Amino acid sequence: MRLVVIGGVAAGMSAAARARRLDPAAEIIVLEKGTVVSYGACGMPYFLEGRVPRWEKLVAHTPESFARERNVTVRTGAEVTAISHGKREVRLSDGEAIKYDRLVIATGARASLAGIANTNAPRVFTLNTIYDAIRLKDHLSRTPPGRAAVVGAGYIGLETVEALRANGWRVRLLTRSARLLGRAEEWLTQALREHLERFRVEVSFGEVIGDTRQIGADLIVLAAGLKPNVEIAAEAGVELGRTGAIRVTDRAETNLHGVFAAGDCAETNHLVTGRPVWIPLGTTANKTGRVAGANAAGRRERFPGVVGTSIVRVCGLGAAFTGLSSEAARSEGFQPVSARIAAMDKPRYFGGRTLTVELTADRATGRLLGAAVLGDKGVEGRINTAATAISQRMTVEDLETLDLAYAPPFATVWDPLLIAAQQLIKLVH
Amino acid sequence: MRLVVIGGVAAGMSAAARARRLDPAAEIIVLEKGTVVSYGACGMPYFLEGRVPRWEKLVAHTPESFARERNVTVRTGAEVTAISHGKREVRLSDGEAIKYDRLVIATGARASLAGIANTNAPRVFTLNTIYDAIRLKDHLSRTPPGRAAVVGAGYIGLETVEALRANGWRVRLLTRSARLLGRAEEWLTQALREHLERFRVEVSFGEVIGDTRQIGADLIVLAAGLKPNVEIAAEAGVELGRTGAIRVTDRAETNLHGVFAAGDCAETNHLVTGRPVWIPLGTTANKTGRVAGANAAGRRERFPGVVGTSIVRVCGLGAAFTGLSSEAARSEGFQPVSARIAAMDKPRYFGGRTLTVELTADRATGRLLGAAVLGDKGVEGRINTAATAISQRMTVEDLETLDLAYAPPFATVWDPLLIAAQQLIKLVH
Repeated sequence: MRLVVIGGVAAGMSAAARARRLDPAAEIIVLEKGTVVSYGACGMPYFLEGRVPRWEKLVAHTPESFARERNVTVRTGAEVTAISHGKREVRLSDGEAIKYDRLVIATGARASLAGIANTNAPRVFTLNTIYDAIRLKDHLSRTPPGRAAVVGAGYIGLETVEALRANGWRVRLLTRSARLLGRAEEWLTQALREHLERFRVEVSFGEVIGDTRQIGADLIVLAAGLKPNVEIAAEAGVELGRTGAIRVTDRAETNLHGVFAAGDCAETNHLVTGRPVWIPLGTTANKTGRVAGANAAGRRERFPGVVGTSIVRVCGLGAAFTGLSSEAARSEGFQPVSARIAAMDKPRYFGGRTLTVELTADRATGRLLGAAVLGDKGVEGRINTAATAISQRMTVEDLETLDLAYAPPFATVWDPLLIAAQQLIKLVH
Repeated sequence: MRLVVIGGVAAGMSAAARARRLDPAAEIIVLEKGTVVSYGACGMPYFLEGRVPRWEKLVAHTPESFARERNVTVRTGAEVTAISHGKREVRLSDGEAIKYDRLVIATGARASLAGIANTNAPRVFTLNTIYDAIRLKDHLSRTPPGRAAVVGAGYIGLETVEALRANGWRVRLLTRSARLLGRAEEWLTQALREHLERFRVEVSFGEVIGDTRQIGADLIVLAAGLKPNVEIAAEAGVELGRTGAIRVTDRAETNLHGVFAAGDCAETNHLVTGRPVWIPLGTTANKTGRVAGANAAGRRERFPGVVGTSIVRVCGLGAAFTGLSSEAARSEGFQPVSARIAAMDKPRYFGGRTLTVELTADRATGRLLGAAVLGDKGVEGRINTAATAISQRMTVEDLETLDLAYAPPFATVWDPLLIAAQQLIKLVH
């Protein structure tokens, strides 16, 4: 059995590694169009910031180490230009054809530059691949700090703001939307905006950029969203979902038998709505890559889906989400009610800081639908507890009595999540 | 309706506050035998340590503030010596009788000194009430540091070790058992012991203390366990469970109609075994107090139970547990399998430290039964996620694909919990 994997970053390498573990005899070939494989893209802002001293520190495996330790052939500079599923082969840009028995498509996503002219100017950057990060870091190291503009207020945009500030740049954040992080919650945009302004980051909403030349800045980073790399798959007859990413089963299989897709190019199931979503994140890429690799190797494994958990640090402040926002819940046919509280993450005498927690539930059933947590510390633990609760369809009553850990070095006797649940419970039924 | 509450600390005050909120017209009387109410007993080790500067900082409400803000009468120095449920009255030590319509028993627990002689010597202390803490702190402030012995290796014992060290004392820890924290896991005792010895704390196992005079130390703290204060309840016909604490329904009601019990004097239901347990902890006291207060006020509310979550800091190291240990699971009729891993809580470039995670599941069903987490940082978040998973009867497969938050400042792309689940999954079915 020959397994071909297109793409050598998170999902592709996870698929190859998992397939190898389950099938020691298979021939496994990873085709990566770039020169670097298996890098942690989520660490790139911290390479720019200077906290990660060299980009090589973000690389978990080289083609050589992967070949040696896992007996997987990793070919770099191997750009797949076409898939011919009838012939069970992929074709590279140099014309070479490579046969497969099973195929994993892990082509990732790219920066969406739709509608912006002059994106190739020397002062214009994106931060999608490690090559982008290396180019920007090189520029930062050779250029005295000046005025930077970041276009886009998603997590990459906000992490880039922090990285540029750490390099001494004065930063302006431009976003087309009226909200930050693409979140509907107005209080959240307001809190993040005030926080950014405290760090002298100017935030401009409703900024539609048609041409990078209209931006007065010495340096421009375009982070206005991603789109999935699905073109070669689509041309080969792989079906796309309504999100524009590749439609897959819960076994990560596409409509073509023996062709799997995972990571940022593919949809996944949202456990709250039961509907396909496209949420490109490293965690999901690793998980779906593993499942694609397992099924490609003949094992039956499924990936149930996500609840939309994400977390980002914005100039030291943590912001995390899981489930649906109130607005998203309403458009999915729920009757959302929300409660928002501010409480200490632990006692003041252990350095406790204020956490803001918002919980959303369905009024009729009490079912938890979403959570947002904002604060200096303790954000990740609370959002993970909420994510677990939401993926298990817990009600706000279930949450209120949850047996969470308490001792003064770690928490308050009533955890902020429980306090929020106490408030929310008054609004349900 | 007159509600009488016996005991003015966590459970009693929670019950009184909740009853008042639900029934503005009720007459509510709290009878506290001591002079201080509504204090956070879990903070006492940090008052001893010096981090909490004055004991008054541990007090949330005074009798006066509770009377003013909540219209609840709080009588201190009011020791109940008998309950006469036939007459619906309690009797105080001075002979006064107080009538009730509904009664909440929140008499707490006390240090178990069974079998130890000479516990009243000036150099011998316990750390059960705030009066104990004040007496010990006073002693520490008037006495030059010397050699201290702590008897008992439960969480109070271990927290006291840390507090005495912070006061400059050289500390020996004596425990009757062969284990620390009453946990069956040998690796855990070994890790904690090595950690304590790194802080020059000598640990002696198998130490049976018959008389405090046999301990060569300038200061002795007895923390060899607790027992529930159930005597006046039992004499009044309130039924005790097999644990020796008061048996209650999920509405916190005793066998006597209209008599409720909550906090450290009462049992609660263990959600994994479905059986009554006695696990005296501040979190449960607050929760069960609230439920007792609600039901005493005529509302129907239930407390489903606990999963045995606890956390303690031992000389800077966090140790947390939830669910059943492998040994406890076996004696409950499960077929436990466990996997233990060590992994970083976040990337090294964000100051990541090693976390040890052990997960236990039932081999036949894959159901998660227990978790233990040990480490410098990130312990509380992981144990709470595991506690949520266990209380929802998740399987290890469910856990493995859980959508946990990831960004480098907060976690690794594969959370230690997920890595442990990946290992454990190989051992089930």
